[in-house]
Amino acid sequence: MTSSEVQNSPLQFEVLHEDGQCRARLGRLRLPHGEVETPAFMAVGTQASVKGVLMEQVAATKTPIVLGNTYHLHLRPGEDIVRQAGGLHKFTGWKGPMLTDSGGFQVFSLAQLNKINDEGVTFQSHLDGRRIHMNAESSIGIQNALGADIMMAFDQCPALPGTDEQIKQAVDRTILWARRSMEAHARPHDQALFGIVQGGLNPEMRRFCADALRELDLPGYAMGGLSVGESPDDMNSTLEKCTDFLPPEKPRYLMGVGPPRDIVRAVSHGIDMFDCVLPTRNARNSSLFTWNEGVLKIRNARFKTEMQVLDPDCPCFACSNKLSRAYLSHLCRAKEMAFGTLATLHNLTFYQQLMAKIRAAIKENSMTALVRQIEQQFP
Amino acid sequence: MTSSEVQNSPLQFEVLHEDGQCRARLGRLRLPHGEVETPAFMAVGTQASVKGVLMEQVAATKTPIVLGNTYHLHLRPGEDIVRQAGGLHKFTGWKGPMLTDSGGFQVFSLAQLNKINDEGVTFQSHLDGRRIHMNAESSIGIQNALGADIMMAFDQCPALPGTDEQIKQAVDRTILWARRSMEAHARPHDQALFGIVQGGLNPEMRRFCADALRELDLPGYAMGGLSVGESPDDMNSTLEKCTDFLPPEKPRYLMGVGPPRDIVRAVSHGIDMFDCVLPTRNARNSSLFTWNEGVLKIRNARFKTEMQVLDPDCPCFACSNKLSRAYLSHLCRAKEMAFGTLATLHNLTFYQQLMAKIRAAIKENSMTALVRQIEQQFP
Repeated sequence: MTSSEVQNSPLQFEVLHEDGQCRARLGRLRLPHGEVETPAFMAVGTQASVKGVLMEQVAATKTPIVLGNTYHLHLRPGEDIVRQAGGLHKFTGWKGPMLTDSGGFQVFSLAQLNKINDEGVTFQSHLDGRRIHMNAESSIGIQNALGADIMMAFDQCPALPGTDEQIKQAVDRTILWARRSMEAHARPHDQALFGIVQGGLNPEMRRFCADALRELDLPGYAMGGLSVGESPDDMNSTLEKCTDFLPPEKPRYLMGVGPPRDIVRAVSHGIDMFDCVLPTRNARNSSLFTWNEGVLKIRNARFKTEMQVLDPDCPCFACSNKLSRAYLSHLCRAKEMAFGTLATLHNLTFYQQLMAKIRAAIKENSMTALVRQIEQQFP
Repeated sequence: MTSSEVQNSPLQFEVLHEDGQCRARLGRLRLPHGEVETPAFMAVGTQASVKGVLMEQVAATKTPIVLGNTYHLHLRPGEDIVRQAGGLHKFTGWKGPMLTDSGGFQVFSLAQLNKINDEGVTFQSHLDGRRIHMNAESSIGIQNALGADIMMAFDQCPALPGTDEQIKQAVDRTILWARRSMEAHARPHDQALFGIVQGGLNPEMRRFCADALRELDLPGYAMGGLSVGESPDDMNSTLEKCTDFLPPEKPRYLMGVGPPRDIVRAVSHGIDMFDCVLPTRNARNSSLFTWNEGVLKIRNARFKTEMQVLDPDCPCFACSNKLSRAYLSHLCRAKEMAFGTLATLHNLTFYQQLMAKIRAAIKENSMTALVRQIEQQFP
């Protein structure tokens, strides 16, 4: 890469080391708002906020990158407000790298669909029933206004199981829309556009989609359309067969995944980036991750009197301040907002510890052993 | 005061300066967990949490002391849990001074009363209907287990308006229970017990109650039974007439007050300490205090597009991080928990700014002018 290419590109990715025993990679991603060590887990900040916590607190969990949702932010507050505020970074106060999805997943999962064709999608807002049209051009326009470091091409994400015909149609539209997304992209110098590979559980469709998208030479690629109804084993075997279809010199992002077990398996197949609501949503539902005791359901009666911290090896706010399980149990039962905050910070910290363990394991070529360990600890 | 008295007392209070034009006093309170400059405003942490925020964040607002509620903590999680955790400080992680109320106010306002006589009160829990008995001895036993720096004598708090007979009965019981509270107090060396003066709007009853309680030579005294249904003017004229009944060399605490206007008026009559849910509750209801524009109802449509901070002179987290009114408006509309957190921190910071302005005004003998100014700004 020449120095002028470096200057003109919003994204640089280096694979630093490959695990000797599996396809896991240790990498470094340079983005306009900072560096990200990969494999990396991104916190989900759907509505310009990671639920339950302030952005400063998210940073304290060592979360390297925060995701915003194009569909949600378009509906409320609207991208014009965010643009006037100076972009999603200034609007939210998050100083590190950000990523926005394309809205495709939410349009197909949350909204009431009215019409879909090759041009785009018409749907009704899940908030107020308002009729909205979205296509590659408008998704990219919104994402340019939001101004995240990474943005995603507009795609069609079919639910699983789907017929071959449904999957093929989604793949064709995803390819068409990726090209139109690239052409509509107004800020390629400071926002990196990723392509999304669809294809369901069918390796041939995934290869076809990936090959077409590789021609666009985008700075990164995602595996989309997984974790949408299929079994963990089906997802795993699809990733095992299909991750290599994505160019090895570029970051590979598995969208919307997931539990620790699925993350370590995906890493072993060569995935570099993840996002999921699981740590934050489960926190608010009182499911807390620990290294020695697995998942603690803090609402259970036994925790009312347990005076130890959640996890003695955890550097999160609650654990490092010696706040007891009894206190968290009390806050949860009393429906105090501080419970959601402390629990969210704990789980986000756990996920970043998990990613640090993964990176350390790859460095030592022991990722395969870590996969087995995590499968046992978090079955 | 000899040095041995200093060593054996959990509370030392010094009046540093008296305003030349009114009875406002600048003071310093030394407590086992730290010093408090007075006049002081305490944040309410009813259920071992200041709603919406972590204790570390409360400290960042310069709040000097946090209040816990004996009634609520007795019901849940129960004082035994808090004692096992090492007291309310270790349970919650709050490192500064704390105060617990006696439970009297909540018993008479929240619970379903079953029986009340000179011995004590039987009531049903507002949580689960469980029948509970509380009296001076049990209130003090609970507060000793909670271990706050300041605890309150068990009192009977009558609603206003009340008949002379109701007020007199409450005063008699309050005096009786104060003596029994003092006798039951097991930790006078490290917890300071305050007496509570009742008497409704009747200065003679208040004088009678205060004189009786002064005989107990407690380390501090509170005005109770105000802000319970009477008009602000009735409260103000009662404080004007009755604050001097409390010993001048001891801290004077006005319980459950209140709006900025009532606070500055009470300070001008010689009150040193305040607590109220107003800044935290109003924050969650989207009412935010500012110095230049009064109270902003951030839910109003105009704030959707206002890109300035809430208050350019505010050092709170949101304002100092340049988070816009538009962002707060969005978080509020999107029902994101971060709204409650940011709004609470803003209002608590405003209240501490108010108290700092009050202390500065007293030092310059200009408290009377500040009262007029605040009455105009926050009518």
